[in-house]
Amino acid sequence: MAKLKWGMIGGGEGSQIGPAHRLGAQADGLFEFTAGALDHRADVGREYARRLGVPADRAYGDWQEMLAGERTRDDRVDLVTVATPNSTHFEITKAFLEAGFNVLCEKPMTMQVDEGEEIVRIAEATGKICAVNYCYSAYPMVRQARAMVAAGEIGKVRLVVTNFSHGHHGDATDADNPRVRWRYDPAMAGVSGQFADCGIHALHMASFICGDAVEKLSADFASTIASRELEDDAMVNFRMARGTVGRLWTSSVAIGRQHGFDIQVFGETGGLRWHSEQPNQLIYTPVGGRTQIIEKGEGGLHEDAQRMSRVSIAHPEGFPLAVANIYCDLADAIRGQVRDGLPDASDGLRSMAAVHAAVASAKADGAWVDARPPMFR
Amino acid sequence: MAKLKWGMIGGGEGSQIGPAHRLGAQADGLFEFTAGALDHRADVGREYARRLGVPADRAYGDWQEMLAGERTRDDRVDLVTVATPNSTHFEITKAFLEAGFNVLCEKPMTMQVDEGEEIVRIAEATGKICAVNYCYSAYPMVRQARAMVAAGEIGKVRLVVTNFSHGHHGDATDADNPRVRWRYDPAMAGVSGQFADCGIHALHMASFICGDAVEKLSADFASTIASRELEDDAMVNFRMARGTVGRLWTSSVAIGRQHGFDIQVFGETGGLRWHSEQPNQLIYTPVGGRTQIIEKGEGGLHEDAQRMSRVSIAHPEGFPLAVANIYCDLADAIRGQVRDGLPDASDGLRSMAAVHAAVASAKADGAWVDARPPMFR
Amino acid sequence: MAKLKWGMIGGGEGSQIGPAHRLGAQADGLFEFTAGALDHRADVGREYARRLGVPADRAYGDWQEMLAGERTRDDRVDLVTVATPNSTHFEITKAFLEAGFNVLCEKPMTMQVDEGEEIVRIAEATGKICAVNYCYSAYPMVRQARAMVAAGEIGKVRLVVTNFSHGHHGDATDADNPRVRWRYDPAMAGVSGQFADCGIHALHMASFICGDAVEKLSADFASTIASRELEDDAMVNFRMARGTVGRLWTSSVAIGRQHGFDIQVFGETGGLRWHSEQPNQLIYTPVGGRTQIIEKGEGGLHEDAQRMSRVSIAHPEGFPLAVANIYCDLADAIRGQVRDGLPDASDGLRSMAAVHAAVASAKADGAWVDARPPMFR
Amino acid sequence: MAKLKWGMIGGGEGSQIGPAHRLGAQADGLFEFTAGALDHRADVGREYARRLGVPADRAYGDWQEMLAGERTRDDRVDLVTVATPNSTHFEITKAFLEAGFNVLCEKPMTMQVDEGEEIVRIAEATGKICAVNYCYSAYPMVRQARAMVAAGEIGKVRLVVTNFSHGHHGDATDADNPRVRWRYDPAMAGVSGQFADCGIHALHMASFICGDAVEKLSADFASTIASRELEDDAMVNFRMARGTVGRLWTSSVAIGRQHGFDIQVFGETGGLRWHSEQPNQLIYTPVGGRTQIIEKGEGGLHEDAQRMSRVSIAHPEGFPLAVANIYCDLADAIRGQVRDGLPDASDGLRSMAAVHAAVASAKADGAWVDARPPMFR
Repeated sequence: MAKLKWGMIGGGEGSQIGPAHRLGAQADGLFEFTAGALDHRADVGREYARRLGVPADRAYGDWQEMLAGERTRDDRVDLVTVATPNSTHFEITKAFLEAGFNVLCEKPMTMQVDEGEEIVRIAEATGKICAVNYCYSAYPMVRQARAMVAAGEIGKVRLVVTNFSHGHHGDATDADNPRVRWRYDPAMAGVSGQFADCGIHALHMASFICGDAVEKLSADFASTIASRELEDDAMVNFRMARGTVGRLWTSSVAIGRQHGFDIQVFGETGGLRWHSEQPNQLIYTPVGGRTQIIEKGEGGLHEDAQRMSRVSIAHPEGFPLAVANIYCDLADAIRGQVRDGLPDASDGLRSMAAVHAAVASAKADGAWVDARPPMFR
Repeated sequence: MAKLKWGMIGGGEGSQIGPAHRLGAQADGLFEFTAGALDHRADVGREYARRLGVPADRAYGDWQEMLAGERTRDDRVDLVTVATPNSTHFEITKAFLEAGFNVLCEKPMTMQVDEGEEIVRIAEATGKICAVNYCYSAYPMVRQARAMVAAGEIGKVRLVVTNFSHGHHGDATDADNPRVRWRYDPAMAGVSGQFADCGIHALHMASFICGDAVEKLSADFASTIASRELEDDAMVNFRMARGTVGRLWTSSVAIGRQHGFDIQVFGETGGLRWHSEQPNQLIYTPVGGRTQIIEKGEGGLHEDAQRMSRVSIAHPEGFPLAVANIYCDLADAIRGQVRDGLPDASDGLRSMAAVHAAVASAKADGAWVDARPPMFR
Repeated sequence: MAKLKWGMIGGGEGSQIGPAHRLGAQADGLFEFTAGALDHRADVGREYARRLGVPADRAYGDWQEMLAGERTRDDRVDLVTVATPNSTHFEITKAFLEAGFNVLCEKPMTMQVDEGEEIVRIAEATGKICAVNYCYSAYPMVRQARAMVAAGEIGKVRLVVTNFSHGHHGDATDADNPRVRWRYDPAMAGVSGQFADCGIHALHMASFICGDAVEKLSADFASTIASRELEDDAMVNFRMARGTVGRLWTSSVAIGRQHGFDIQVFGETGGLRWHSEQPNQLIYTPVGGRTQIIEKGEGGLHEDAQRMSRVSIAHPEGFPLAVANIYCDLADAIRGQVRDGLPDASDGLRSMAAVHAAVASAKADGAWVDARPPMFR
Repeated sequence: MAKLKWGMIGGGEGSQIGPAHRLGAQADGLFEFTAGALDHRADVGREYARRLGVPADRAYGDWQEMLAGERTRDDRVDLVTVATPNSTHFEITKAFLEAGFNVLCEKPMTMQVDEGEEIVRIAEATGKICAVNYCYSAYPMVRQARAMVAAGEIGKVRLVVTNFSHGHHGDATDADNPRVRWRYDPAMAGVSGQFADCGIHALHMASFICGDAVEKLSADFASTIASRELEDDAMVNFRMARGTVGRLWTSSVAIGRQHGFDIQVFGETGGLRWHSEQPNQLIYTPVGGRTQIIEKGEGGLHEDAQRMSRVSIAHPEGFPLAVANIYCDLADAIRGQVRDGLPDASDGLRSMAAVHAAVASAKADGAWVDARPPMFR
């Protein structure tokens, strides 16, 4: 089976997310790295793309050039990954979708809610795939959790509690480092800092595992380092459509937490816990029973959890392979087999609606605010 | 050195907290179990007290009888522990204080804020000790955390995050079990369920470690089991006097969490974590440095942490010995050496003010409410 | 019920094990600290005993004085704990047993195998209790493990693997510290260093949980710090009477391990794991099934595990309360209810036979040696 | 930069190790899957290779056909991976090396010591790369451990303790399953079962991290399931050239352990611990100091540890990316930059010598046996 052709915009040398996409696209041998516009400095980007094996004529200087170059080819790329600075996601994703390309967009998909709605409409109109990289949802044991909830194995979900808290921006003496500062500057990051950066991963996962949508929320934001305009710590309480109570804490000043993304889901007949630092295990407790450790690769897992694991039990699979799972599902989708669970434009839109709702709530002292995008109300 | 004489009210056979107090009072050989009114059934209580070694003439039928019996003796008990149902704590504590006894009261000290203020005034007026059993604060590594904060070892505290969440009331089919039901019935539990039961331990510890007081809060309460009038899950955001941001989650429906009491304290130059299920370790991360495991019993701990440990490093000391540490400090206090950190009536009062503030906030959709007792504003 | 009268020999101020015995004897209110000869310096010991509440006339200058003083009293102590330097255990234990006292002896019970056999015979002849403080066996979850094995819940035991490895003697610059040095000096420690000090706890626990006896062993000893005559690291392979394969590693130079005592038991239909640093949990995996966490205090535990726990689930109970469980069983035994599982002189003897066998094996390059005491062959 | 051309022998559909090699070779975009003889059933293997994207004319029916086909091409594959049944590794590796191919051989490289010596000589003579897939050595934090030891950060190494124990062959009712049985059948597995299968990974890692070679060993083997001719549990004590004491336990009947590969290294001034189930952390304790958690991706790691990590701190990287690190080093080596630490034929040879030594020792009741290959004595 011939490989699919893949192109990336952004993700240049030294970027944090670029390697994850290249590993994700290539690990399973499903995509050939065929085109790229990897850097805002045209020459640098072209040279880096060539170094990574992209043919010289498809190593582009910017996304506009790539769009122009690829749209006219018979062998155009099957998938474009957008991994540029956040504020450009909307424009690029829109342009490629409209030109008939399938797109995987990094989060956040857009900066504004109406932009998000526009992307949703364009994706529908063109019939093209518009996926958003909520890659944590593609860990095998996250899929197991989702499938267990869907199968009623913990009963109706009462409560979901999730945290995405790290301490990597906790050093005030490093706050002016440009790699840190932009995240708290509205000119670059938009209306929200830490919640938009990490919180929406946690919020997406709550919806993803529960199979439910956030309806309303109440937020408490704090900028614990005085020079920051945007929040570096946030607590968001929420309610989902089926009544589930939600609690989400996110922080970038939690010194000592490395990658503190975890989720706990409590239903009428059981509880589940998952932690991104030990992603190959899912902790399950049936009501009145003992806590059990469910291992990636054990017998009898739900289908999605099996499909998304490559090596045998207790051989850990990590973050890059979760990204690879997104690419596996994209390859299937491009070939016509759409997999349930691939995060798409509606997820990207819901996140943006939640970000704006949280900002509004935080400004209103925690007043409860509708978190749904207008088009989904 | 002769032992001090100790009496207990409540804590009868089969009670949960009674054994902890008996172990706590006796473990270090500081108190002799001298008097007791252990059960609301007079005969049962007398018989049980005698079985536990209390002299027959000081095995009382009820607290009034014990008060009458003890107040006239020359060898009256040096300390009375009040471990009766919550709604009686105020009345009994007040009576014994006024009669000149030192009291250790189980939490909550009172049901009402004004009652709490009254106890504070009586304790001041009589000069007697009125301690409240926030026993988690007497774990050696909690003391180490407090001392590190006080010494500036993590800088100004920006953020404190604490949880006290278990799942032992998560079974709806067991919700009518009287041992569970009363906690969610206002007639017995007062204005709050889970927050008043467990949340105030976490809130006390936040104040204790930070050396700071809660000023205002915003609460989101949920009764996830429909038959419950009071909350079984609560999220409380708060702010402390020195500006620290606080986040507190407490739940009794978090199925699979056994004793999920933990606290994280994040300052300008470091972070600390402590978990009650592994109480002999404190996790410390200096900003920009590696996470370190501080062990109970290691060299160089702060004085309080050393004093409150009995056996050598890595020999675990658990909950009963934390209670015993409270009794050690009480013995010192009775003999005139008042130890910093012994939780007292002002702590009991602050808790009750916070409970009422949280209830008011939850009813007002999370509005921010002053959490200070009137007398401390 | 009147308290039993308890006396201690050794365990003076600053000793490591003294506090554990005092807590153990007093925590449950079963024993009154009535007599003591606590220090080899007579005056120091008397003064310390009085400070701890021992009546002045029973604060003795040495064990001979205590023996003379107590044997003639009508109200003689019900139990004597021997916590003196190892080389004196035999002599003191023998003397008190022969005088009709019940004894709890610290390990090692003797230095020689024939001495051990003599103690066993004397205990039998006098009918007095001679217990040995293998206190780890009195943790509730160790009892649960033993009961599960006895009930066949993991099938025939194939394999037991246990470690007792710490790093507290790993600093060569501290090797001449008298508190460390004596353990590796044959003049004070006897034929074995680390194996006799810690290894025999692990070996006892293997026998205890499996309900089986060690038959033969092969040892590899190392003195990793050159100045040490005795071993600071040892590996012992063994076989038990019913064919179980055993593996035991013990070390005092394992820098970074604090209290690394753990045991794993693998049977035909399941496996168990327990770790002394988290003693309130037992990890159980049925063959072909998921790993489960068994919690101290959960419903349905075996009787011994229930009896030996004082406070509710997930409130940790630590080392001092394991020692207290030994004293609880001693109180019962003194009153005529002998509990299965109380470690006695035969355990002390088996340990000493194993120590001498291990030394012989290590000297013979790991040759397999009979580990049974002659009287049990 | 053009991709290198890669071929694989074995690793057919459903094999355990095949996916790890494909992920490893492709993840970083360094190798193109160009040729393969994947299955002992020629048609099945050809079809599977084509499905995986191998050109039809290089999808071979067996290794002989592949050797014949590739050796005459100008664009012959740059690297051949040998992932066939163990007993064929020698023959295939020899043939490809002699034909001038670079080879990555699965472990064990050979079944006999003299075969191993032959491979070493051929590799030297041809100047071709002969790597052996001790892939655990390519985890970033294993490299960090090795570099710390080399830099003297824990002083002279006194002791190394390693385990590779799982329970996946612990079910006697599954012992006749062909996927399990062959490992304990000398006709297929050779002289050793579990030690040759898993133990040699642990033994390699001990040498790898310590930068030292095993000199002699003493083994205790057990077949805990009666029908097994070869051992399913083994303990091996060893000594290294610089005097380090070694202890290695390996088991396949340790029910409940999933992937229990861990290593502890204790030196004069510090200790290190690493566990394959949490491979992104290295636990370090300086003598007299606190235990520290070293995280993959943190600042200041040794060069190899940095180079072998792809995504930022606390984003876990797992087993497939450790294999990918082997392929990265192979790509560098093929292009002329030989990396220190790539496991090669001498490692494969040393393992086989250790296996035969352990078997001999076990048969001689644990007698100490020279574990070095004759050519390295």
